[in-house]
Amino acid sequence: MIDLYTDSSPNGFKATIALEELALPYRVHHVRINAGEHRQPAFLALNPHGRIPVITDDETGITLFESAAILLYLAEKTGRLLPQDPVARWEAIKWLQFHSSSAGPIIGQRVHFELFAPEKIPAAIERFRHLTETVFAVIDSRLSQHPYLAGEDYSIADIAHFGWTHIARIVDFDFSQHTHMSAWHERIAQRPAVRKGVTLPEPATGA
Amino acid sequence: MIDLYTDSSPNGFKATIALEELALPYRVHHVRINAGEHRQPAFLALNPHGRIPVITDDETGITLFESAAILLYLAEKTGRLLPQDPVARWEAIKWLQFHSSSAGPIIGQRVHFELFAPEKIPAAIERFRHLTETVFAVIDSRLSQHPYLAGEDYSIADIAHFGWTHIARIVDFDFSQHTHMSAWHERIAQRPAVRKGVTLPEPATGA
Repeated sequence: MIDLYTDSSPNGFKATIALEELALPYRVHHVRINAGEHRQPAFLALNPHGRIPVITDDETGITLFESAAILLYLAEKTGRLLPQDPVARWEAIKWLQFHSSSAGPIIGQRVHFELFAPEKIPAAIERFRHLTETVFAVIDSRLSQHPYLAGEDYSIADIAHFGWTHIARIVDFDFSQHTHMSAWHERIAQRPAVRKGVTLPEPATGA
Repeated sequence: MIDLYTDSSPNGFKATIALEELALPYRVHHVRINAGEHRQPAFLALNPHGRIPVITDDETGITLFESAAILLYLAEKTGRLLPQDPVARWEAIKWLQFHSSSAGPIIGQRVHFELFAPEKIPAAIERFRHLTETVFAVIDSRLSQHPYLAGEDYSIADIAHFGWTHIARIVDFDFSQHTHMSAWHERIAQRPAVRKGVTLPEPATGA
């Protein structure tokens, strides 16, 4: 059985969506970030960085944090959501990494500077808007050539990016001018596992 | 044969160090970022995001960008720098991902706001100093328990983090108070493959 420690957040949704897609049995443990539960010793023992999501798998004794590691693990465990063909497999991993290094952190900083920072700093807001647009343009270009980021098949790369495009929609980081990316987002948003995943551990604010 | 497209940079060093450690034959193509070569169509055809490093492997027809994807690929191709034991293997992948999502992007933003931004913004500088310290503390805590990030063995997780700790030393993002991390850095810096890797495609500024 897999235990998932998570909160309603873009990185958490990657784990809930993947677990729902794979129909793996799992237990959800709600780590209430707004109550500081991610700073408690019990959670820091799972992830010393104090971030969700975390999974533990009692079949293997493995504990993982970092959503991209969790997605790779679940895909390898099941042989699904990651193509078998080597070229397509590495496309999926490449676009997963593009999310985890280049897209997710940039959108996350934009959320901070544009929405949460007590001081509104025009240069920082403009920097992360520009970098977000660059990332969106790269995604859109890829999706103008292929239906999914790995190519022909839906994969963990799509799940990773969707975690954040779902939030981008909610907080109005507009990507409607990127028509291929927008169509991809709509297509994925309709998947039953995705619709359920974004409601766990409880409905996201505004979702 | 592997072709590596890179410049003298923390992300580029991850690829050169890994290729040197693995003693794989490869050709270096110097993409001069300060001459805008990463924005030329020939390079954008390899990586639409315009970032180094990129590898192509003519044995498999695979083209990869994102340094973490490249490290995973080289490790899987050779069966080295990534433990075989499942628990240790996923420790390596987890700490690799911690680098690529949580450490690298944060240190990179600190470099921008502290060193390169035309406008010095105290709140942004302070934010990324604080987040860098958090990341360094997590790494130090891990290395207080194990000689390497994956556990007992040197792996691609160490190479990924070293790419940036090497630069942190050069630009004086001090981590000397993190004694386990500092000792780990010194130990890795002495490896012949590492010493060579950080000189490719040419010596880093100040290195």
